[in-house]
Amino acid sequence: MNIYSERIDKLREKMREVGADAIIVPTSDAHNSEYVGDHDQIRRWLSGFTGSNGTLVVTKDEALLWTDGRYFIQCAAEIAGSGIQMMKMGEKDVPRISEYIASLMEDREELTLSFDGRVMTAFEINTLVEKVDETKSLKLLYNDDLAGELWLSLDERPKRSCERVKLLDMGFSGLSATDKISQVREAMEAKKCNQLFISKLDDIMWLFNLRGGDVECNPVALSYAFISQDEAFIFLQKDAVSEAVRAYLASQRIIICDYEDVYEFLKDYPYEGKIYADLREISHLAYQCIIDGNGDKDSIVNGMNPTTELKAVKNDTEIKNMREYFLRDSAAMTEYIYWLKKRAKEMASGGEVLTEVEAAAKCDELRKAVEGNLGLSFPTIAAYGSNAAMMHYEATEESYAICKPEGMILTDCGGQYPGATTDVTRTVALGPVSDEEKTNFTLVLKGWLSLMNAQWIDGCTGRNLDILARGPLWAKGIDYKCGTGHGVGCYLNVHEGPQNIRWKYIEGSSEAVLKAGMTVTDEPGVYVDGKYGIRTENTLLVEDRCDTADGHFLGFENLTWVPIDMDLVVTKLLSADEINSLNNYHNEVIKRLGDRVSDEVIQYLQMLII
Amino acid sequence: MNIYSERIDKLREKMREVGADAIIVPTSDAHNSEYVGDHDQIRRWLSGFTGSNGTLVVTKDEALLWTDGRYFIQCAAEIAGSGIQMMKMGEKDVPRISEYIASLMEDREELTLSFDGRVMTAFEINTLVEKVDETKSLKLLYNDDLAGELWLSLDERPKRSCERVKLLDMGFSGLSATDKISQVREAMEAKKCNQLFISKLDDIMWLFNLRGGDVECNPVALSYAFISQDEAFIFLQKDAVSEAVRAYLASQRIIICDYEDVYEFLKDYPYEGKIYADLREISHLAYQCIIDGNGDKDSIVNGMNPTTELKAVKNDTEIKNMREYFLRDSAAMTEYIYWLKKRAKEMASGGEVLTEVEAAAKCDELRKAVEGNLGLSFPTIAAYGSNAAMMHYEATEESYAICKPEGMILTDCGGQYPGATTDVTRTVALGPVSDEEKTNFTLVLKGWLSLMNAQWIDGCTGRNLDILARGPLWAKGIDYKCGTGHGVGCYLNVHEGPQNIRWKYIEGSSEAVLKAGMTVTDEPGVYVDGKYGIRTENTLLVEDRCDTADGHFLGFENLTWVPIDMDLVVTKLLSADEINSLNNYHNEVIKRLGDRVSDEVIQYLQMLII
Repeated sequence: MNIYSERIDKLREKMREVGADAIIVPTSDAHNSEYVGDHDQIRRWLSGFTGSNGTLVVTKDEALLWTDGRYFIQCAAEIAGSGIQMMKMGEKDVPRISEYIASLMEDREELTLSFDGRVMTAFEINTLVEKVDETKSLKLLYNDDLAGELWLSLDERPKRSCERVKLLDMGFSGLSATDKISQVREAMEAKKCNQLFISKLDDIMWLFNLRGGDVECNPVALSYAFISQDEAFIFLQKDAVSEAVRAYLASQRIIICDYEDVYEFLKDYPYEGKIYADLREISHLAYQCIIDGNGDKDSIVNGMNPTTELKAVKNDTEIKNMREYFLRDSAAMTEYIYWLKKRAKEMASGGEVLTEVEAAAKCDELRKAVEGNLGLSFPTIAAYGSNAAMMHYEATEESYAICKPEGMILTDCGGQYPGATTDVTRTVALGPVSDEEKTNFTLVLKGWLSLMNAQWIDGCTGRNLDILARGPLWAKGIDYKCGTGHGVGCYLNVHEGPQNIRWKYIEGSSEAVLKAGMTVTDEPGVYVDGKYGIRTENTLLVEDRCDTADGHFLGFENLTWVPIDMDLVVTKLLSADEINSLNNYHNEVIKRLGDRVSDEVIQYLQMLII
Repeated sequence: MNIYSERIDKLREKMREVGADAIIVPTSDAHNSEYVGDHDQIRRWLSGFTGSNGTLVVTKDEALLWTDGRYFIQCAAEIAGSGIQMMKMGEKDVPRISEYIASLMEDREELTLSFDGRVMTAFEINTLVEKVDETKSLKLLYNDDLAGELWLSLDERPKRSCERVKLLDMGFSGLSATDKISQVREAMEAKKCNQLFISKLDDIMWLFNLRGGDVECNPVALSYAFISQDEAFIFLQKDAVSEAVRAYLASQRIIICDYEDVYEFLKDYPYEGKIYADLREISHLAYQCIIDGNGDKDSIVNGMNPTTELKAVKNDTEIKNMREYFLRDSAAMTEYIYWLKKRAKEMASGGEVLTEVEAAAKCDELRKAVEGNLGLSFPTIAAYGSNAAMMHYEATEESYAICKPEGMILTDCGGQYPGATTDVTRTVALGPVSDEEKTNFTLVLKGWLSLMNAQWIDGCTGRNLDILARGPLWAKGIDYKCGTGHGVGCYLNVHEGPQNIRWKYIEGSSEAVLKAGMTVTDEPGVYVDGKYGIRTENTLLVEDRCDTADGHFLGFENLTWVPIDMDLVVTKLLSADEINSLNNYHNEVIKRLGDRVSDEVIQYLQMLII
């Protein structure tokens, strides 16, 4: 018998013991984090599927695993023999999980559903409950982590990460925690709320000027925050807090509580008036504890954390540091591109073959050697040929492509620094490429330049601007199936909101007016399944431009100074303005990186001017 | 004593008789029409203010008139001595009407408000009621038209327009009323509604393939429609219906009722299930009658009329006719532009001066001479110099500018035809113009071309596309304070929804995905207060372009073929692609108008190629 089918059978025993008809096991932690640590990889342990996105639902008779198109092949292989059935998300006739749960209730009056209330958001559960016929009874068992208990009883469940919390110096934060808390309290007052509960880790780190190391690539510590008009609480793991951190928090009049005690705290707090919380972020259990404690669902005001909006607008100190660290990071990335071009030439003249793993390792090595580097902002993607058509491809030691001195390699990477988080993508020719590849690279370049050079009137969101990046591709019947850009944190998460560049509003995604101080990536691309992938990505900073009789205008300051591989550019497809803009860009790269890269790199850069 | 202050005092007597504390007198008819006929110009009669936008509110002590920036000067002059106070809409510290009414109730527990329930929409009144503190009582007297009664008793109130209703041939409609009603019933079913009430006149005309002449420039008849799954009713004025129309309606199984009986009908109808209605369109009285008849507010489903969406997508017959009539209209407009240029030259060499009134008259004369012309689609705007900076300027016999052989004249005009409604604007130099004017004309041209040449993926709305037209202006810190484009009817209203080209969502404006068959204008502009105005406007038709691996793509077919005044173009500001596009456009104008305009016009057109 398959080990996973055994685990699922044992889970069914536990379900029977508590009277659960179905259980949901998602891939998430208590903070809706983008990366989930080993401790919370329960779904992986239960099902054997190792992909990053998957939700398992087990009933008496069925075990279903929802995952997306990136993982259909891998998932099918990994769950073979387990008795688990894959549910292909987004495909026709495949119900959503909420629809599936509702369908289970078609022939019955009541259903008992178990899930770990700490790792599913209030919004997810509310959505699920709404789908159920009002006349029927859906009973939720959310206090126990049945699958987690099983894991602990049968196997060694990894401990929760507990890295030491670090202080972020005022030279990097630019604003004290006390001042940030005051701003948050103003925002709470505007919403007529006396209390605010936050579980979003990067928001908490920003608010208290702390950093941590509990989530892969995100410099955040596991924590919660609770702010009232008089008090500020932070919930941290005991072992994560040094004396220095304790003293610092005391100096800012922030009360430290134990991470484990948050739910009791939420139940016991003497609430006054309304409580503000982001139901898309906080857990169902936290939501229930607030309701239990307060006795009133209507006193919870749902909305985006005020910290999310405040954090998105970088202050002068942050901007000054970002400029410097982006330059350092750009120098390393430029050295990498030069190395790639040189390495490709060696390969063409019979030198050793290049692998994706080697490319990624070289890129990481150069970045980690940058003064001040504190690691990567996400796992480096180095994807050769058709692998680059997969937007979230990651080569591993076990599975990687060997490059040839032809075609293109796409490298998407970024670093963490005390004053910045970077994100950059370049696509580089390793030798001859097809006309189609060159043409499409040039179309991407046109869109990339157009967005970077945009100026717009105050009030625009990414929805207004997206067509600038996408237009040259749309003109040829090409589209990329993702947004054009996302916000980027400052020594925080590489993906942050609320701003983004998207043409279409997607359920659950935020849309924010672009304000000076916000960052956003500019990353159009072309992805041809089974053939190749192209993406060119810079990180931009929104800046104020001018005030005229017609209004206030904004534009972008560019933060990333990494060259474009001119071997991939069809010059005749560029307008005179575009050629000008590209030459200006490369001249700036040379000027800014002048004393940060080697002479041979400068020589290489000079040859890019057309 | 001023005649208007007398009228307002008499109105106050009537208010006292019925116990009304305040009365609202808006500028509107029972159909939320864009143009309001003489019969419904009660506010004008009461206040003396002749502008198109104004709402009068009278209380025991106050008489306030809300109007917008176009009319501040005119209104102040016209209401002088009446005791009426102007309320400048949009200015700081000027409350909205709903806020004013709410403020009247600050110191009292109840207020009785009178208004004519037939000419205020359900949405307007609902908004007003929402603003009032729940604990207080706002009593609405909406059955009587106190101001109208006063008018009738003191003076000669113009009769309601009652032009004969006309049939629209299948050669123009392309689809029978029976088939359209079936489509509407499908849409009703999708909304789970058994009944639909429509008061929007162009929707009703479209649905039943009728036309009328009761609203200025809009070929619509005063009417209502009520559709159930089994029956279709039209409410028309008795004297407007000929035997032929009666017979036609009978042949389509459409029941004719008297226009006056609609409210009784709505009260008495044996409703089953839900009733669909657009609360932004139907009157408060109609809304109340449905509720009174049905006894249930919750059975009204509020949403855009299904006819609005169906009407917006033109069918093949309509498109074929539109192409032909737009060409005819373009020929007349091109003759007009040639005439303007010639006339300006004559003026420069000592010929008679040109006036705005003469220009508009010439334009109208040429258009009315077009085979099939059925009048104008809106009053022609011919605005010289600084007058063109006012977006809704209209010269009159009493007040008009005299042109000089310098600067620019802006002409915005359109016609009605049995197969089309046209809308076109051109700005023409009458002699020397400043560099700034030329530069800005060229920026407008760049945006105009960019939008016209756009291709985009299915799902986009005007919000995604607007920056194409506005981008070249935004790049210079210039903006125009209106949308870039609006939908255009087919032998119907020159402004129709739900589609439009706007960068910003405005409360109450609709936003629709652009679908093949929809029309939209492309009319960027520059308006410099007190100096000059520039606008270039074509009407475009959305067309399907291609299906690729990445999706379905759409673009525009151009319908308007009228030349651009190259005397205003700074060629060096145009890219090679833009010059190409402009030359292609003028070559098409020559090709398409070849046998429709005089030889000297063709010679003129040939000189526009650069």
